[in-house]
Amino acid sequence: MSRQYPDEISLLKKIAQAAGPQAEKELRILARGIGDDAALFKPRLGHETILTCDWFLEGTHFLRDMHPPDAVGWKCLARAVSDVAAMGGMPRCFLLSLALPKSHTGPWLDLFLRGLRRASRKLQCVLAGGDTTRRQEILINVTVAGEVCSGHAVLRSGARASDVLYVSGRLGEAELGLQLLRQYRRIVSEKNPLIRKHLYPEPRVALGEWLAKRGLATAMMDLSDGLSSELPRLCAASGVGARVEGAKIPLVKKPAVHGKQALDLLQLALHGGDDYELLFTAPRRFTNRIPRRFRGIPLTAIGEITRGQRPVMIRADGREQPLIPGGWDPFRG
Amino acid sequence: MSRQYPDEISLLKKIAQAAGPQAEKELRILARGIGDDAALFKPRLGHETILTCDWFLEGTHFLRDMHPPDAVGWKCLARAVSDVAAMGGMPRCFLLSLALPKSHTGPWLDLFLRGLRRASRKLQCVLAGGDTTRRQEILINVTVAGEVCSGHAVLRSGARASDVLYVSGRLGEAELGLQLLRQYRRIVSEKNPLIRKHLYPEPRVALGEWLAKRGLATAMMDLSDGLSSELPRLCAASGVGARVEGAKIPLVKKPAVHGKQALDLLQLALHGGDDYELLFTAPRRFTNRIPRRFRGIPLTAIGEITRGQRPVMIRADGREQPLIPGGWDPFRG
Repeated sequence: MSRQYPDEISLLKKIAQAAGPQAEKELRILARGIGDDAALFKPRLGHETILTCDWFLEGTHFLRDMHPPDAVGWKCLARAVSDVAAMGGMPRCFLLSLALPKSHTGPWLDLFLRGLRRASRKLQCVLAGGDTTRRQEILINVTVAGEVCSGHAVLRSGARASDVLYVSGRLGEAELGLQLLRQYRRIVSEKNPLIRKHLYPEPRVALGEWLAKRGLATAMMDLSDGLSSELPRLCAASGVGARVEGAKIPLVKKPAVHGKQALDLLQLALHGGDDYELLFTAPRRFTNRIPRRFRGIPLTAIGEITRGQRPVMIRADGREQPLIPGGWDPFRG
Repeated sequence: MSRQYPDEISLLKKIAQAAGPQAEKELRILARGIGDDAALFKPRLGHETILTCDWFLEGTHFLRDMHPPDAVGWKCLARAVSDVAAMGGMPRCFLLSLALPKSHTGPWLDLFLRGLRRASRKLQCVLAGGDTTRRQEILINVTVAGEVCSGHAVLRSGARASDVLYVSGRLGEAELGLQLLRQYRRIVSEKNPLIRKHLYPEPRVALGEWLAKRGLATAMMDLSDGLSSELPRLCAASGVGARVEGAKIPLVKKPAVHGKQALDLLQLALHGGDDYELLFTAPRRFTNRIPRRFRGIPLTAIGEITRGQRPVMIRADGREQPLIPGGWDPFRG
């Protein structure tokens, strides 16, 4: 941690302990972060370092009253790790920047750190340092350092015409989980798989690494803002278009309980955010090497890359329509 | 940048352009950050990576109405780089997390980016990626990746009894600059060297690297919170005490113009924050190898490391007093 104010030392101790004994051992090997000015990170030979950072702000990305602190801890790390997965890399360590009201340095912080620790173990990404300060609102920023074999990182810019377009998982699940959480704020069951997907997303690290190592994917990114927002970015980065078959998009299984409104599962899949699934392209000759499921997660071919400029979607009636970004834009309006 | 909301693209373009053509060239070599999920960073062979992050928050670390946006841009990077300097490393690239009100995405952002770009060039630390979002308050978090020859990083924990304790520069300058700025809010002259030190601090990168490469320093840290707060941290990390001679601390030169209050320069030097000078220890046998000035910056021996537990100060009257942290603590009170 770069700064340790006198009364902040107990806070830092708490955070360091939350890294756990195993992580402490690893930390001694890989990083001298907590308690020094900065962390030291030794990438393995023949690997490049992947760096990414992500905001996770109260009011913007989570609500203090609605989201369990344990889930805030899990998700702030998981979503940053998802960017490493999207390059085909493996997470190694992270820095935590945390700004908290004094009222939240007790039980809230303990639960937050419990969730963070679970994510840290599950994702094999150890706490290496960070920065803390006091603030009326809860502000979180997470930096993840990962690594990838040199030259094997999968960028957004590698898609070529006639490549097949794939997604992992089912799209719209996290958005539907959020809707359920909003509706039944007081009777939340974290066992509901949709709510779990919203609260405890699992970045597709193993899948990303598998695709990168075998050189199967030409372009890849993670779906944090919804397919309709993300696919145009992949197309723009690669200088290509795409044709998505609406009927092939893997939709949420309709939940038993939902509000009175009719549920448009396709709209959810197109525009729902926070799924952290992978969107990737593969040359047509490799399609027989891509399984229908990878460790239980469905992999679905939803269309193909074209010579066009923008992505379009083929509707159920066979007509083509442009894919208009419907994701959430904090700078719009 | 990990997320690009549709209307955010112009913002990202602005930020990417601020990196400048030279940086763009370097970026192609070293990182694929902007426009992809994460940045790729290739450390040189035989080097370890240094990772550090720093908050820079409106209201906590700067004031929207008092601090020129250009200075906010400069300082948010400079202070994070200072943590790399404190390990004896060289900065390489940085990630910028920026949350802004829509009202500040025009001229304010342009000036902010101008200051950031100047710092980026001066400190040879290129923009590699980040995250942006919208927010009522201006929130900044900067992650810097640097590098240091393997095994040459200088930690806080290496000080040994009888080592000589040094500081670079003069202490209390930035704090006095802040006081002047507060006093004469409307007639600020950025040419005043004290105000410059507060607005545009220069991390001691060359000095830190020189000490680390030659193996002259046993322990090192930067002074972001004032000597009285930082020295106890170095002592605690090293398991030693220290004896500081008050009369030897390099003080601010008294400014011609100051308010009505008497100015206690020693108090300023002990407790003033934001100087970003280096505090380091060297074995007694190396003292003849440490110059009185390094590239124009004074290096002053202010005391020695002892077998004690805590730092003490010898006053002008020869009496010893404990060094009580007087720096600012966001979690206190």
